[in-house]
Amino acid sequence: MIMPQSRLDLFVDRMVSQRACLDHAASVIADMDGPVFELGLGNGRTYHHMRHIMPARDIYVFERAIASHPDSTPPDDMVLLGDVFDTLPDALARFGPTAALIHADLGGHNRKKNDLFAQKVSPVIEPLLAVGGLMVSSDRMYFDTLVEQPLPDGAVQGRCFIYRRNS
Amino acid sequence: MIMPQSRLDLFVDRMVSQRACLDHAASVIADMDGPVFELGLGNGRTYHHMRHIMPARDIYVFERAIASHPDSTPPDDMVLLGDVFDTLPDALARFGPTAALIHADLGGHNRKKNDLFAQKVSPVIEPLLAVGGLMVSSDRMYFDTLVEQPLPDGAVQGRCFIYRRNS
Ligand SMILES: C[S@@+](CC[C@H](N)C(=O)[O-])C[C@H]1O[C@@H](n2cnc3c(N)ncnc32)[C@H](O)[C@@H]1O
Ligand code: NI
Ligand code: NI
Repeated sequence: MIMPQSRLDLFVDRMVSQRACLDHAASVIADMDGPVFELGLGNGRTYHHMRHIMPARDIYVFERAIASHPDSTPPDDMVLLGDVFDTLPDALARFGPTAALIHADLGGHNRKKNDLFAQKVSPVIEPLLAVGGLMVSSDRMYFDTLVEQPLPDGAVQGRCFIYRRNS
Repeated sequence: MIMPQSRLDLFVDRMVSQRACLDHAASVIADMDGPVFELGLGNGRTYHHMRHIMPARDIYVFERAIASHPDSTPPDDMVLLGDVFDTLPDALARFGPTAALIHADLGGHNRKKNDLFAQKVSPVIEPLLAVGGLMVSSDRMYFDTLVEQPLPDGAVQGRCFIYRRNS
């Protein structure tokens, strides 16, 4: 009997993978300088988790409209408010290629739309990452210079992706 | 170092526990007659999962306002639209004490509010369950005649609850 996954199954896999990739990435970049970027705040659950596992780091949040849970809302001066196609180039001018970790969970429910968006946003994200830095995404990204990494234990293939700037 | 969980950790535990309890309950009640009730449709992820693991069953959905993902939206005649304090008594008049499985995920972000709500809604849910039937909830419930059950493998203590009508 063919038994594809339910939406709950897919969602659990995505959340579990997100957490596994973030935990892994946080430990890999622990000794690097540079800010952390969270693209897409949403409800704020992953931001809350990132604060939790990287309490000492500067975490900048890129979001169009803040609508997060009160205990997961970043301070004003850590928010880059607006469309990422504006705020990511602004961040490049401000920070240069210094980000130690960039996490993106920009997608909505529509797989095809998410993929098109990933294609468009990849070149705008790519220059921000420092050498040795990691990019963690819920969608497959389209980078020229970043190298896809193996997933850590606990992450499910296809539910998250990790990329690294090797040089 | 004290290391409480992040909101992402709690959320993952709740989703994983919800699924483990539903999968377990579906197999326990497989040979029973009677409808299944989903209280609180929300996004529709657990409803989608319930349809997936119990494709042959009648699953009635109790919800104030339908706002689910299109592929997780029940047919009109399987929805009991309105406040559960109205629709649950209606369901008792219509179905009697016949439900094989009742799943409730009616809560929001506020733990204290959820607990007060669980206290109020428990006596309205309780009479609907058939003998041998199971009630699965994300919040601790306050039943007089239903008996709390051990959780299945994979579920996290305190993140979901199972109750049974023994007689
Ligand atoms: C947490 S969501 C359910 C999420 C769902 N289990 C899922 O997986 O997507 C809770 C839902 O319960 C509904 N709800 C809360 N209180 C209610 C009430 N008194 N009567 C009817 N529906 C209610 C809300 O409208 C909301 O859609
Ligand atoms: Ni299936
Ligand atoms: Ni901690």
